[in-house]
Amino acid sequence: MMTLSDVAKILKSQDNIEILTHHYPDGDTLGSAYGLCIALQNMGKNARVVLSGKCARKFSYLLDGVKESNFTPHFIMSVDVAAKSLLGENEELYSDKIDLCIDHHGSNTLGVNDSYIDDTAAATAEIIFDLINVMGEKITPQIANCLYTGVSTDTGCFMYTNTTSKTHRIAGELIDLGADFGEINRKMFETKTKEKIALERMVYDTLDFYYDGKLAIIYTTIAMQDKLNLGDDEMEGLASIPRQIEGVKMGITIREKKNRDFKISVRTNGDTDACEFCKRFGGGGHKAASGCSIQGDLITVKQTLIAAAEEILL
Amino acid sequence: MMTLSDVAKILKSQDNIEILTHHYPDGDTLGSAYGLCIALQNMGKNARVVLSGKCARKFSYLLDGVKESNFTPHFIMSVDVAAKSLLGENEELYSDKIDLCIDHHGSNTLGVNDSYIDDTAAATAEIIFDLINVMGEKITPQIANCLYTGVSTDTGCFMYTNTTSKTHRIAGELIDLGADFGEINRKMFETKTKEKIALERMVYDTLDFYYDGKLAIIYTTIAMQDKLNLGDDEMEGLASIPRQIEGVKMGITIREKKNRDFKISVRTNGDTDACEFCKRFGGGGHKAASGCSIQGDLITVKQTLIAAAEEILL
Repeated sequence: MMTLSDVAKILKSQDNIEILTHHYPDGDTLGSAYGLCIALQNMGKNARVVLSGKCARKFSYLLDGVKESNFTPHFIMSVDVAAKSLLGENEELYSDKIDLCIDHHGSNTLGVNDSYIDDTAAATAEIIFDLINVMGEKITPQIANCLYTGVSTDTGCFMYTNTTSKTHRIAGELIDLGADFGEINRKMFETKTKEKIALERMVYDTLDFYYDGKLAIIYTTIAMQDKLNLGDDEMEGLASIPRQIEGVKMGITIREKKNRDFKISVRTNGDTDACEFCKRFGGGGHKAASGCSIQGDLITVKQTLIAAAEEILL
Repeated sequence: MMTLSDVAKILKSQDNIEILTHHYPDGDTLGSAYGLCIALQNMGKNARVVLSGKCARKFSYLLDGVKESNFTPHFIMSVDVAAKSLLGENEELYSDKIDLCIDHHGSNTLGVNDSYIDDTAAATAEIIFDLINVMGEKITPQIANCLYTGVSTDTGCFMYTNTTSKTHRIAGELIDLGADFGEINRKMFETKTKEKIALERMVYDTLDFYYDGKLAIIYTTIAMQDKLNLGDDEMEGLASIPRQIEGVKMGITIREKKNRDFKISVRTNGDTDACEFCKRFGGGGHKAASGCSIQGDLITVKQTLIAAAEEILL
């Protein structure tokens, strides 16, 4: 097991560093990558971030302090990438060439020899925060913005139970170091696209309750998606809606992916086990959040799920 | 100006203590009051909380560690109460009898001789956290739940710019002291009543955009309120909806309070000044959040607001 000092020593000895993110890049992989990239550039090194997939527009401020850098990479590292397949479009080119892996997923299967994996960290950005300090490098306001973004997004703004007292301590320090946290949180948590609003409006019209309000179900169809002209990734993020409703023990979101092919997301409160439920349909996940796939037509799929939930909820 | 040691000394010398909250009690006034009440009871004192108005059901866990206490009060204090009128139903009986005031509103006008007011605190619960420590009393998990609730709700789960590094440090300590923060945040931020869902659904249908999407307007009417059978307080909390939409600089919520009487809530992003806007209609508030009242019929009121926004947004 490497220590952060080992990691710092390796990075200090290297130049011409490429930093890989996971695909569908989120606030933590982006914030960790750009935060570290700026710190390495400030140390006089050549460094750049190699994205897998596009950086969503709302994250564009993360690039503010990054210098364009033209060089031949000699050292490849990954941040927040838990498996080769998560490298996405970069898998073929990079998966056997990673020299250093930094991650907070205990389930990491990258198999990189030099790995620093700390699954007590709520976000990889927490590890990068410590690393930059161990390297003795200054955390500038721009780096603080990157790392705050990672910590804040991976904890649902400190709402989720992966948050620790260390997470809060680091967030506090980042605020003191100049993180523009109010604006970051507004962008991350309080901004919805018009399309998202339109989608929520449509989805609310599909909301139904069963078993004295203990089961709530919403659905989306390809026809809805087409009408709103939304991409597949824009159909995500609805699964929390039915569970949020008072009295609901199980919230199910049915999403038509293609004809007769439905993706089911199940979210539960309290003791209700979403994973047990989804296993019946060949799926799985965690107790509070699981998923599965079911083939058929919408009405039959919905009836099947309602029937299966009966013994759990009654 | 009193110090926290002065406050601690006074409280230690007292017994039979009543703690007043402000009306429409929120997470901070309740969490501060019950957290302190439990600490005082643990010190062997008689103490109780005197609510102004009802404690909403979602806050009921705050009372878990509170002992019923029958006594004649000798010492009256208030927490998070910034003005006499905010005592609500208790104003007449209590407003001249307050012996000690603890608050974080710099604008406090209670005029109590023994006052500890710290407007750098994001929540009164931060002050109570320090106070219990200065008194040398243990913060039990139940007290931690109360104080975490105060801190978390008054900062929008650490999202708003009143959050400081101290807020985060205290939240971290409360987590280490046993605050059940995941469940608390779920109750506070991720639970909506069915009526609220139904209201949002209706309100989404009123959403209109003007000036290239820079202005978004929603409204509620008495007819909608009647149809959903909602109380006046249940019509609150919609004002953030129009501002959250991408590209919106000004979000206006129009609420019909009684016939021909409309309450207008204005929320802005960036440099757009909500207060200047509302002043034209005899209202006011803060730059990002202001309000006013306008008489008339819905269509005229809406047209008046749209016209008034033109020079600000174009």
